[in-house]
Amino acid sequence: MEFTVKQIATLLGGEVAGNDSLAITKLAKIEEGQPGDISFLSNLKYEPHLYTTQASAVIVDRSFQPKKPVSSALIFVENSYSAFTRLLEEYHKQLSYARVGVEQPSFVGEGSQFGEQIYRGAFSYVGRNCKVGRNVKIYGHAYIGNNVSIGDNTIVHAGVRILDNCIIGQHCVIHPNAVIGSEGFGFAPQPDGTYKTIPQLGNVILEDYVNVGASTTIDCATMGSTIIRQGVKLDNLIQIAHNVEIGRNTVIAAQTGISGSTKIGENCVIAGQVGFSGHLSIANGTKVGAQSGVGKNVTEEGTAINSSPAFGLKESMRSLAIFRRLPDLERRVFDLEKKTEK
Amino acid sequence: MEFTVKQIATLLGGEVAGNDSLAITKLAKIEEGQPGDISFLSNLKYEPHLYTTQASAVIVDRSFQPKKPVSSALIFVENSYSAFTRLLEEYHKQLSYARVGVEQPSFVGEGSQFGEQIYRGAFSYVGRNCKVGRNVKIYGHAYIGNNVSIGDNTIVHAGVRILDNCIIGQHCVIHPNAVIGSEGFGFAPQPDGTYKTIPQLGNVILEDYVNVGASTTIDCATMGSTIIRQGVKLDNLIQIAHNVEIGRNTVIAAQTGISGSTKIGENCVIAGQVGFSGHLSIANGTKVGAQSGVGKNVTEEGTAINSSPAFGLKESMRSLAIFRRLPDLERRVFDLEKKTEK
Amino acid sequence: MEFTVKQIATLLGGEVAGNDSLAITKLAKIEEGQPGDISFLSNLKYEPHLYTTQASAVIVDRSFQPKKPVSSALIFVENSYSAFTRLLEEYHKQLSYARVGVEQPSFVGEGSQFGEQIYRGAFSYVGRNCKVGRNVKIYGHAYIGNNVSIGDNTIVHAGVRILDNCIIGQHCVIHPNAVIGSEGFGFAPQPDGTYKTIPQLGNVILEDYVNVGASTTIDCATMGSTIIRQGVKLDNLIQIAHNVEIGRNTVIAAQTGISGSTKIGENCVIAGQVGFSGHLSIANGTKVGAQSGVGKNVTEEGTAINSSPAFGLKESMRSLAIFRRLPDLERRVFDLEKKTEK
Repeated sequence: MEFTVKQIATLLGGEVAGNDSLAITKLAKIEEGQPGDISFLSNLKYEPHLYTTQASAVIVDRSFQPKKPVSSALIFVENSYSAFTRLLEEYHKQLSYARVGVEQPSFVGEGSQFGEQIYRGAFSYVGRNCKVGRNVKIYGHAYIGNNVSIGDNTIVHAGVRILDNCIIGQHCVIHPNAVIGSEGFGFAPQPDGTYKTIPQLGNVILEDYVNVGASTTIDCATMGSTIIRQGVKLDNLIQIAHNVEIGRNTVIAAQTGISGSTKIGENCVIAGQVGFSGHLSIANGTKVGAQSGVGKNVTEEGTAINSSPAFGLKESMRSLAIFRRLPDLERRVFDLEKKTEK
Repeated sequence: MEFTVKQIATLLGGEVAGNDSLAITKLAKIEEGQPGDISFLSNLKYEPHLYTTQASAVIVDRSFQPKKPVSSALIFVENSYSAFTRLLEEYHKQLSYARVGVEQPSFVGEGSQFGEQIYRGAFSYVGRNCKVGRNVKIYGHAYIGNNVSIGDNTIVHAGVRILDNCIIGQHCVIHPNAVIGSEGFGFAPQPDGTYKTIPQLGNVILEDYVNVGASTTIDCATMGSTIIRQGVKLDNLIQIAHNVEIGRNTVIAAQTGISGSTKIGENCVIAGQVGFSGHLSIANGTKVGAQSGVGKNVTEEGTAINSSPAFGLKESMRSLAIFRRLPDLERRVFDLEKKTEK
Repeated sequence: MEFTVKQIATLLGGEVAGNDSLAITKLAKIEEGQPGDISFLSNLKYEPHLYTTQASAVIVDRSFQPKKPVSSALIFVENSYSAFTRLLEEYHKQLSYARVGVEQPSFVGEGSQFGEQIYRGAFSYVGRNCKVGRNVKIYGHAYIGNNVSIGDNTIVHAGVRILDNCIIGQHCVIHPNAVIGSEGFGFAPQPDGTYKTIPQLGNVILEDYVNVGASTTIDCATMGSTIIRQGVKLDNLIQIAHNVEIGRNTVIAAQTGISGSTKIGENCVIAGQVGFSGHLSIANGTKVGAQSGVGKNVTEEGTAINSSPAFGLKESMRSLAIFRRLPDLERRVFDLEKKTEK
């Protein structure tokens, strides 16, 4: 990116105070701004940095009045935070749209079809009979099995594995080394103590606008589908077992694990390192605290739970507070015993 | 797959009631059955679905008598669940045996040898002096280092890394992006606060019939071998440190971690997100609850433990129940104090 | 490796008792030593093995006097443990320096430059405008995006993903399938319940001598850099979120997760499966017990914490001990209630 301050002000519908011909090449935090950078000031906690930053330009709210001289050019806009976010998006779009075309060597099996404006990186692998939409990016080392379909505008990063028969929606982003459609963990115990593998014949369906974090694993269903609904955002290193279903717009933080056949509702917010037992049903809007262990159904919408095993958030906070004072509580019981002995 | 109902009945040694000429192309759950599907009824909880399913055929127990009219063809067999599992296996075998031959480009170093009926996918890498048995499948993007041996009928999925000198048994399945034989985490603290890497020269041995889940990591031994015994089943995202040994037919669920030099016995069942300290010895048949933290040896066979730090399952359930009522317990102590003050 | 006992003694500056012409090909533990192996005896707990081992040679301390006849040749040195470690290192260097040159096919984008003595494995991918130092090893299936710089003597193992604009120092080791510079988990909730992706424009900086374990994920900063300082050692399957900073010589065990913008001090020792909330500041020298959940700043250097949520180690040990006896404590309260009722 290389724009003048004036060009950026025009893009954002703002007015400039200061030198509007300076060249801007990068975005930066106000406290780290260097010549050539543009930054923003929204939270007034950061105002002192405005008077010392070396950024060439700073975006500020129209209502803002500097209390000291400022060496940067100022761009006044309605909402400085939104304006900066818009700039971030434009910048990002420029970067990410840069990759188009097909690098060689890359592999495509018989019968696979691609839409327009495809990027396929070197060493990417697409199996047989796949349908890949338009403006899809398949980075180097991505592996896509047979009979997979991928919707328009989806990004499949380096090292992602999408196994046979999976269905990926539009506008999804699948981060590096995520695994989608691996065989579920199904074994039938035999009388001699060994285990026999139960064939896993289902697939994984990702609806539109799903985000799958780096090295997250989503197993295919034994039969039918493991389903991740529209707008679900999954962080890194999450485990999702066979036949799980996750409702729309649910957000799950890193290293959480969900056991087989559990259904998570819509608009849930699940923190990191949480574990769910299998065959549970979790109501819409459930909030789960970090490192919780969820072993029971949640039936009421909007419930907040915590701890391992998980129960009501408020109740758990009380129990945890007393847990820290247990030595004191025990001493009090001891004192009472001594007192009543007499 | 495309068979008639009659052909399937013959395969399973069953008798048909209804139209035995219908074509079957897919397996499905009874509640999701569509025309062309075959399903089964074993648990009578699902019997109501028998009268509404659209599946073309349903496998039932010979002893079963329908209470209402059924539109699907019925195949009567000794044990409907076993029969269906057999069908699943046949179906799966057909699918997975489809991949044979060598796709290009693929890489093989000097001195490596392969048995018959090999599949090597595009962009697979096999280093020098490897010995690969017959009917082994090495998918695209799998990496196999130098001096690795792989037994007959083993499947190495896309993105698996098997590092130098590892020994993989027969009939193993290694799921996508698993890492076997990475250097263990060994560092010697130096007087200046830095750490010096301790070279890790050992390897990993997987005996026969071992399952390694997606993105699971198994470090090589410092010297000697990290050993996963016959029939062990490991789920996804598990960490196994250097010099660990896991006994035959032990099953470990996702996201569990085992620290260096710990020995786990045979036929153990270990739930998800469990952590084991290093240098432990865990008896045969030990059962460990989800999210437990095991910090001590388990010496008695068949022990069930739970919680973090882990102790007896029953005892831990009692303590956890009281944990939830701690505010109540504290109030009772407070009441006693007030009472005895008087 | 193939040396005589005499050659090894000369290398280590030691004296031989016994046959110094025996050929040594391998290093082994004393209890597992076979003909052709060299081993060592440092901890006298292992002395009994000295009289039964089949190792051709054993390194011992100069001060050591055998109590029985020994069949192995003995090499007397100042410090047997250090001497053996040095041997391990030499051995390892020989092994790991074996890989040089460029295997084909491999991919390099426009404008990328490499120092001398490079190894690039088959199917490795290096994007545009990268700067790679001398004696760097980039294994097969490693993916390096655009504008990445990698310092001298760094090893990038198979399947590692280093995304655009990341900066990797010298003497780093990045283990298989680690992901560096993936997009952070940043989503702005919208009024309709959906989430909008916040572009992640920063990068990851690894300073020198950093170790990144297999399948560990390190997200790029939203703006600026996620920074891993010199000498940090990260084990496998660790999650490090956007804008985290980890101080020099801090060691973190497997499966730990650190949320966005948390700063960890220098020389900390963090056990496995620990979770850190976001925006925390953790003092230098902090020690954190396994499976702890850290939700608050640690301000005093050298603090040891434990449990979830984490508090002082000693206090937590006391509370955990009483937790196990809660049924007993509850009974005592019940007894007191009965007593005071009368």
